[in-house]
Amino acid sequence: MGDDQVTDLDPETRAHLEAVATATLAGVMQKRGVRTTFLSGLAPIKPGQRMVGRARTLRFVPIREDLIETYAPRLNMQRAAIEALQSGEVLVIDARNETDAGTIGDIFAMRAIELGAVGIVTDGAVRDTPALRTMGIPVYHRASHGATYRRLHMPVDQQVPIACAGVTVVPGDVIVGDEEGVVVVPAAMVDEVAAEAAQQELEEEWGMSRVEAGESTDGAFPITPARRPEFEAWVAERQGDS
Amino acid sequence: MGDDQVTDLDPETRAHLEAVATATLAGVMQKRGVRTTFLSGLAPIKPGQRMVGRARTLRFVPIREDLIETYAPRLNMQRAAIEALQSGEVLVIDARNETDAGTIGDIFAMRAIELGAVGIVTDGAVRDTPALRTMGIPVYHRASHGATYRRLHMPVDQQVPIACAGVTVVPGDVIVGDEEGVVVVPAAMVDEVAAEAAQQELEEEWGMSRVEAGESTDGAFPITPARRPEFEAWVAERQGDS
Amino acid sequence: MGDDQVTDLDPETRAHLEAVATATLAGVMQKRGVRTTFLSGLAPIKPGQRMVGRARTLRFVPIREDLIETYAPRLNMQRAAIEALQSGEVLVIDARNETDAGTIGDIFAMRAIELGAVGIVTDGAVRDTPALRTMGIPVYHRASHGATYRRLHMPVDQQVPIACAGVTVVPGDVIVGDEEGVVVVPAAMVDEVAAEAAQQELEEEWGMSRVEAGESTDGAFPITPARRPEFEAWVAERQGDS
Amino acid sequence: MGDDQVTDLDPETRAHLEAVATATLAGVMQKRGVRTTFLSGLAPIKPGQRMVGRARTLRFVPIREDLIETYAPRLNMQRAAIEALQSGEVLVIDARNETDAGTIGDIFAMRAIELGAVGIVTDGAVRDTPALRTMGIPVYHRASHGATYRRLHMPVDQQVPIACAGVTVVPGDVIVGDEEGVVVVPAAMVDEVAAEAAQQELEEEWGMSRVEAGESTDGAFPITPARRPEFEAWVAERQGDS
Amino acid sequence: MGDDQVTDLDPETRAHLEAVATATLAGVMQKRGVRTTFLSGLAPIKPGQRMVGRARTLRFVPIREDLIETYAPRLNMQRAAIEALQSGEVLVIDARNETDAGTIGDIFAMRAIELGAVGIVTDGAVRDTPALRTMGIPVYHRASHGATYRRLHMPVDQQVPIACAGVTVVPGDVIVGDEEGVVVVPAAMVDEVAAEAAQQELEEEWGMSRVEAGESTDGAFPITPARRPEFEAWVAERQGDS
Amino acid sequence: MGDDQVTDLDPETRAHLEAVATATLAGVMQKRGVRTTFLSGLAPIKPGQRMVGRARTLRFVPIREDLIETYAPRLNMQRAAIEALQSGEVLVIDARNETDAGTIGDIFAMRAIELGAVGIVTDGAVRDTPALRTMGIPVYHRASHGATYRRLHMPVDQQVPIACAGVTVVPGDVIVGDEEGVVVVPAAMVDEVAAEAAQQELEEEWGMSRVEAGESTDGAFPITPARRPEFEAWVAERQGDS
Repeated sequence: MGDDQVTDLDPETRAHLEAVATATLAGVMQKRGVRTTFLSGLAPIKPGQRMVGRARTLRFVPIREDLIETYAPRLNMQRAAIEALQSGEVLVIDARNETDAGTIGDIFAMRAIELGAVGIVTDGAVRDTPALRTMGIPVYHRASHGATYRRLHMPVDQQVPIACAGVTVVPGDVIVGDEEGVVVVPAAMVDEVAAEAAQQELEEEWGMSRVEAGESTDGAFPITPARRPEFEAWVAERQGDS
Repeated sequence: MGDDQVTDLDPETRAHLEAVATATLAGVMQKRGVRTTFLSGLAPIKPGQRMVGRARTLRFVPIREDLIETYAPRLNMQRAAIEALQSGEVLVIDARNETDAGTIGDIFAMRAIELGAVGIVTDGAVRDTPALRTMGIPVYHRASHGATYRRLHMPVDQQVPIACAGVTVVPGDVIVGDEEGVVVVPAAMVDEVAAEAAQQELEEEWGMSRVEAGESTDGAFPITPARRPEFEAWVAERQGDS
Repeated sequence: MGDDQVTDLDPETRAHLEAVATATLAGVMQKRGVRTTFLSGLAPIKPGQRMVGRARTLRFVPIREDLIETYAPRLNMQRAAIEALQSGEVLVIDARNETDAGTIGDIFAMRAIELGAVGIVTDGAVRDTPALRTMGIPVYHRASHGATYRRLHMPVDQQVPIACAGVTVVPGDVIVGDEEGVVVVPAAMVDEVAAEAAQQELEEEWGMSRVEAGESTDGAFPITPARRPEFEAWVAERQGDS
Repeated sequence: MGDDQVTDLDPETRAHLEAVATATLAGVMQKRGVRTTFLSGLAPIKPGQRMVGRARTLRFVPIREDLIETYAPRLNMQRAAIEALQSGEVLVIDARNETDAGTIGDIFAMRAIELGAVGIVTDGAVRDTPALRTMGIPVYHRASHGATYRRLHMPVDQQVPIACAGVTVVPGDVIVGDEEGVVVVPAAMVDEVAAEAAQQELEEEWGMSRVEAGESTDGAFPITPARRPEFEAWVAERQGDS
Repeated sequence: MGDDQVTDLDPETRAHLEAVATATLAGVMQKRGVRTTFLSGLAPIKPGQRMVGRARTLRFVPIREDLIETYAPRLNMQRAAIEALQSGEVLVIDARNETDAGTIGDIFAMRAIELGAVGIVTDGAVRDTPALRTMGIPVYHRASHGATYRRLHMPVDQQVPIACAGVTVVPGDVIVGDEEGVVVVPAAMVDEVAAEAAQQELEEEWGMSRVEAGESTDGAFPITPARRPEFEAWVAERQGDS
Repeated sequence: MGDDQVTDLDPETRAHLEAVATATLAGVMQKRGVRTTFLSGLAPIKPGQRMVGRARTLRFVPIREDLIETYAPRLNMQRAAIEALQSGEVLVIDARNETDAGTIGDIFAMRAIELGAVGIVTDGAVRDTPALRTMGIPVYHRASHGATYRRLHMPVDQQVPIACAGVTVVPGDVIVGDEEGVVVVPAAMVDEVAAEAAQQELEEEWGMSRVEAGESTDGAFPITPARRPEFEAWVAERQGDS
């Protein structure tokens, strides 16, 4: 049920998003004039990560000791955001690119896994990185830090538009991650972008084959109109094969 | 009536805040354990600025071209925040410390003045700095930049807690500025902090007089218990004078 | 003759550029889709600076001691660029935003003045700032530093496209400066941009007058179609006056 | 033939460069007064990389939309630089240390491989990092980013002196990389530097053996005149062995 | 004997420190009001590092060529600090977070190993990173760089309080490292902090088990008074098991 | 007496230092191979500042709450350094370029004045900037901040070599400031450097006169051997005049 709400991606779209590179998605959106979609400077905590999900957002502001009772009590927005996670969601945290304190650790990450979350993205630091590396959830971060968020942060909002690593993330955006990093695909254009990215990767595969055959990139990538029939024949042949 | 809501500072508190240094206020709050109140790296756009008012907050996020229709149409949150300004308020803008585009210019600043605003604070850049310098409103900024906010920003929220120059600002916080910079005084403790700051400045004045008389700072600043009677006699004498 | 080449701006264009704000020029170019024209983080070395001229570019690279004989001998590219300055030109220096050494000092600046140069812009530091402040040429810089360029830099090229303070500058671009900072206007569009900026300032003047009269900015700035007749009447009246 | 031009390193020099550490090369050049040769902050994209080649340079400047037709058409300088690569060359890219867009991706890298290039070095970001890791060419970068270069950059020049990661690189410089990073060896001193580095590593090997035998570093590293006969005996013995 | 001086940790304390995460230690000290203990932005040079030892400090200042004879002769403070290392110590280097030159290389690291040192921490760069990775000593650094320290640094002091990666380190402090990074435990509170961290990890283990069993984190982590009896029963049972 | 110790500059040297530009001093030292003498990024707090004195150094490290009793009690190193100031000294503060807290305020600055100090230099922030601007002592800083040093710093040492704004300062170094910034002249070379700087300024004055007369800089600055007789004649004539 919760699933229905969030893992509501069209199956073909989902298949595309699980197959294409984040670079391809960023490139396709650039061509449509959407220039700021790739999160800047975030790294996966372990090799081989791959992630597709809907954004659930969490916003931190700087700690102000007079407000701790208001914003960082036991039942605070960090906990609320995590408890609200639904199957297929990615928790995306705005920590103002500030890396001198953690923003999430292993137990909260485990709770996210239990609730069906499929990824965690923070533009700050994570705690318990060694433990997180052993857990079954992709995590993207700017750094690792042993302090808890209370050293610098207060959780203040969830499910509002946030800035994460220089990119605006709106609840419900589709978040895709691979070894290169993380890209945001706006919900309203996800089907088109995913389809176009799949087609783009086909073109790049052909372009790569031409270059591996010793051709210049000129004509082969991007494909010029003169070469397009060749590409189309190659596609047709592949489809015949399968 | 709008006035009643916002220019509701106790007259004695207001008098103190108009007289004391931002450094004194920051120091008094530090002693109470509230460590992060002074906005980092912001400068007044002209000499002699002094400002006391209530915070009205505006939050920008990074531009994302697919969301411009949603967040940056003609009647957007920047305009809404400015139109909502009430007498005695300071507009405080969260621009993620990003200085490569303006966040406000001269016409919107004039509208703020017309509505009774008493200051503008941004952790990004302002546009039209030369014109702003001729206008009757204190402005604090990190830099000047000629581009409009649409180069980098979208206004997304007003009257929510924001981060401005590394400090959390909540709507209704008291914002005080002088030539040193800008400090946030939490609404809930403003009367106490203002009174304590006034007393602190009295102590510093006495301490300064002792140092100018050739004494060491030790004992004179901060005042040790042994020297306190002297200080109190000095205060009494001054009050007798006046 | 040299003059003819460089101070070849259309007189009306020049008049516009000397009157409008750099912010207006940046805004007009943004509307045309040219987003990166305002030099980031550069400040005038004294109040009241105003500058219009053609770009002559100079490019520094990091010092490499084995190449000093090649790139930084007595008759080097810095000297060459300055000796090549023609009347109406602005020397624009790419110093990779590196501020820990000067890029030009007072004697070379005087030579630039003698040759008719109308401005100096560097994204690094200048030396001899106190002396430069007394001289009759606008200077924009990121910082001041007492070391000569040889501490960090070698002059390597002149009159090539450069990056200056985050903006590409091509020889012959029109460089405009005021107290806000410096903007680059591409040579190919300077007449149109200047005219449009003059018109834009007229609209802003009307908008400002409306706001000063107590109106909301909505409708007055930017001018909505419904209000345009009013604006045009105001323009007509002003022209009648003069 | 192209090979003759670029893979023209003296075989003994090449053998030395393939064997010594980049740290040794940087240290040897420091002793000769050439202080800025090691590229700052660049990392290999995979473990075990090792690279020796001649520099072919490519220079990017910031995107300026009015110049895209001029500098970033289909047959632009990026493509030209890559097509011009000759056997034994390393492509070295000046991206102003700006990491918020890629500067090269997998298909162009494959073309570089096909043309005999032996490495790619950028002080910006690369795209398609996961694919690049599977390809047979060493790549050094500051970060990964999914956007194409058109988000921030225009290719403007090739085979000119550039700044890459804080170091000046001139076409034809010898570029050496290992797991520590990348160092530039000026063409004019490569034979001497390579020979001296090989000798230095011999001295360090002896010094290490002395330290492993329980001696202090004093005398053993660097070798003092008093200890040099011992070192020479050790060298003689080794040569006798082989 | 040297050992007696420095590897003087209480055996139970040592056992705790060898078992707990640096994040747990940082968190425990935060609760005690000691907020700045985790070194910011330092990474292990290889996976699986784990380190416990006493701090021996070394302080670098910027190179000043007139002082090289004074501060960086053959028998300088770097060498002195390393020769003074005793069994169980960690060498902690203050390099002002400056990464454009090495601060230690493989031969000095080997000497440290021979003297019984158990770790090396620098907030600058290390040289010879590939060799260091093969050696039996944990190393934490901000970056790798091929230049020797003389490019930027002079060793000036040892065994004084230093700033390393934003944290004050006093000689004799206990330095603990794992894959997350490095934390400083003040000597005066090490027994208490270690014991509390061990207890904290027990609580976190129980909390994790509750979350893995499908519970919310609320109540389970941190443990609320209502749940504490359950936790204590779980502890008792475990102890019965063993 | 105290004076004798510190205001012990040779009168001619002092006269030179009071007359020449900091840029000239930095340039003269560069020629002698001393490259890092100009403090990076510090600004005077008011126009017209000029300063010559001997360095007294003060070193801060990051706050660590467990050490406050040790390092920041009432009679701490900040107070000790200030009380130790002697006539003719400049207080030079190492605050690790950290600007989010003050390092000195108005009362301590007044005490410094009373003790004969002739300047204050910090690479962090000052508090009470508006008051400091009214006082008779030159102050150089990176920024202003209202918080006291206890927000971030502990004073830990005085009269040790420090790093200030990227430059090593040793107690007793001669510190010279003007509107450009601050330069350190090593005590051991101050007489020579001052004399050479005075001569250099004479040469620059002649060079400037040549350029103002319409000559190229080539030959006039720096003076080539061929032009030296002319320069010398000009000097002789001037001396005849006076």
